[in-house]
Amino acid sequence: MEDNYGNLISSLAKENEKRIVLLVLDGVGDCDNAGRGTALQIARTPNMDSLARLSAMGLIVPVATAVTPGSGPGHLGLLGYDPLVYQVGRGVLSALGIEFELTARDVAARLNFCTIDADGKVTDRRAGRISDEENKRLLEKIRAQLARVAAAEVLFKTVAEHRALMVLRGDDLDDDVGETDPQAVGAEPLSPTRPPHDGSKTAKIVEEVIDKVRKILADEPRANMILARGFAKFPSWPTFAERFKLRAAAVAGYPMYRGVARLVGIPVAAEPTTAEDVCKEAGAAMKDHTFVFAHFKYTDKTGEDGDLDAKVKRIEEMDAALPTLLAAEPDVLIITGDHSTPPLLKGHSWHPVPVLMKAPLLRGGDGREGRGFDEISCRAGQIGTIPAKELIPLAMAHAGKLEKFGA
Amino acid sequence: MEDNYGNLISSLAKENEKRIVLLVLDGVGDCDNAGRGTALQIARTPNMDSLARLSAMGLIVPVATAVTPGSGPGHLGLLGYDPLVYQVGRGVLSALGIEFELTARDVAARLNFCTIDADGKVTDRRAGRISDEENKRLLEKIRAQLARVAAAEVLFKTVAEHRALMVLRGDDLDDDVGETDPQAVGAEPLSPTRPPHDGSKTAKIVEEVIDKVRKILADEPRANMILARGFAKFPSWPTFAERFKLRAAAVAGYPMYRGVARLVGIPVAAEPTTAEDVCKEAGAAMKDHTFVFAHFKYTDKTGEDGDLDAKVKRIEEMDAALPTLLAAEPDVLIITGDHSTPPLLKGHSWHPVPVLMKAPLLRGGDGREGRGFDEISCRAGQIGTIPAKELIPLAMAHAGKLEKFGA
Repeated sequence: MEDNYGNLISSLAKENEKRIVLLVLDGVGDCDNAGRGTALQIARTPNMDSLARLSAMGLIVPVATAVTPGSGPGHLGLLGYDPLVYQVGRGVLSALGIEFELTARDVAARLNFCTIDADGKVTDRRAGRISDEENKRLLEKIRAQLARVAAAEVLFKTVAEHRALMVLRGDDLDDDVGETDPQAVGAEPLSPTRPPHDGSKTAKIVEEVIDKVRKILADEPRANMILARGFAKFPSWPTFAERFKLRAAAVAGYPMYRGVARLVGIPVAAEPTTAEDVCKEAGAAMKDHTFVFAHFKYTDKTGEDGDLDAKVKRIEEMDAALPTLLAAEPDVLIITGDHSTPPLLKGHSWHPVPVLMKAPLLRGGDGREGRGFDEISCRAGQIGTIPAKELIPLAMAHAGKLEKFGA
Repeated sequence: MEDNYGNLISSLAKENEKRIVLLVLDGVGDCDNAGRGTALQIARTPNMDSLARLSAMGLIVPVATAVTPGSGPGHLGLLGYDPLVYQVGRGVLSALGIEFELTARDVAARLNFCTIDADGKVTDRRAGRISDEENKRLLEKIRAQLARVAAAEVLFKTVAEHRALMVLRGDDLDDDVGETDPQAVGAEPLSPTRPPHDGSKTAKIVEEVIDKVRKILADEPRANMILARGFAKFPSWPTFAERFKLRAAAVAGYPMYRGVARLVGIPVAAEPTTAEDVCKEAGAAMKDHTFVFAHFKYTDKTGEDGDLDAKVKRIEEMDAALPTLLAAEPDVLIITGDHSTPPLLKGHSWHPVPVLMKAPLLRGGDGREGRGFDEISCRAGQIGTIPAKELIPLAMAHAGKLEKFGA
């Protein structure tokens, strides 16, 4: 798949000193809650509603109609990288999630502790969901006996429960490695060197590592083996600066989002978590940057908890904090989410995400006649329903950062 | 990039005697003007508003979200040619703009007169923006000494100020030529034969021409050199007639738009400029043609001038002239623009363009309850927001000119 739209925008991008702020309320979108409306409809948001009267509104589709995005694809879309073109391996996503900084010499994989029987067959793919502490103890035990193999350094990091990160660091490593998880109990772990990976140097190293780990864990009652999947190198994509000629900074309190920013070469300026601090730090970052990606986590977290009232409260917190950001006077301000997280679902969803854009040269403000910032008002807005990846280009157009196409 | 949609429509096209008229109000779209609304909102347009009550409305995206089209891409989209698939070189666009008729044996390039110093370094890429008269004098001087080189005839035409058109005419010429404009002062002009163009016969001819011109201009105080870019051949695309099985005619007062029509093989029927004449000639052209592309320039020109009141007046002129066109009773009448030209911007913009389509078999008229033909009413119309290239196919469907897809 080619990124025709992204390449087009990249070819038209030009620099100026106008400021664009992308404020992401993670998972802000919702569906109706038993007739009460969406979280945005229920929340009292006088500041966002005032803003809506001066702003364009619309809906964005993170990946594609009906597709529920994970956090990685959701944010890549927002940042103008088509999530279907720019796919990240699970190993890299695991590293981003715990803020492990991968180098160009690394290959990362997601690890599960598992249980195998005397015949070597998997009996539990999650080793009874061991605790984080147990995970740490086991990795300590492995580390004590296995810091490197001949051709590579081997690093292990706890993620949570039975999940861990494995990183091989060495020269000329690649992701040409077979996944060892058989994805079923009663089967043996697969060989990383099975065809078509039988000629791969990296696969041979992985085989050696896994054999050694198996011996180290042999006396463990539950977590006596590991399964590895999602072998991936840190991608070498065009950076955000190369692509859009924007001097960008990220303001994000959670590791995963700082990680996604780094994935496209956006440096982290601050790590706030509360609504007030996110707005304050975003405003501060505008001083030296022409683009600020600011991330607020709690609208997603409360949705994942299935707690509608808490989600409403978090939206109201952000609304109350907004004047702090507005005081810094961004030329273009976007407020949106990376996906929807309906409390009814207790998870991400495919619903298009409401977006508000305050910018010069609009066709009037969409939030008039009682239409505040919510999913229903956004549906009738001048932005329409567009792919998330078109949002930053649209902000760039309003900020005078795109040349004309053709004469 | 492939033109899947265009190929599909082409495979379904069938001929009948129904008449489609595409009336282009160049640059008609606008953004809000400090709370006054858009030019279409401000203009008193009783005829368009009456028409809207019987018509479908919508918005079209000329090239892609956030992308501001030049006149070439803007019109190609309207004429059903995806502007990202059908890209025209600048040399060809320059020829279209002065109505120089390129042949299949030609390679065209855009020329700038420039100033170089004693070391051959460019000191002014536009030679002080010399006058049109000076441009003509210099080309006359060149012509007197250089009518052809061994392998090709060489033609020069004044465009305006420092800009000119160069055309090489000969056998087996192509566009495999390096641009010589270094795009910066203090650098020497680039060689047309630098890699990867070092094997090109045409590049060698260009090199010879430029060397000779340099000698001819050596004693000039300002315009003592030329820079060439955008080498391009007249494209050999499927013609409009082949593609849509429509017998088309163009009615356009300005060279650029007649040129774009010729680019897709549409012959020119008349060259009117006033609103009344455009409508009269469009009506007359319907007699022998099943498709008429009629172009009105002044809505763009006034936008480029930043003159909102004048733009409003031009829209009202066209509104007053419309009955002349309606009297000819087109089966499908489309009124739209090739892009937006907001007076606030004094130039083209990326804003989606309002469109009105009077046709049989609509889902009622969209312009009821006080909704006239303007950007805001169009947003809620039954056409929705679609790529410009889908407009003629939609008109063809309403005119019974498309077969069913599949059995």
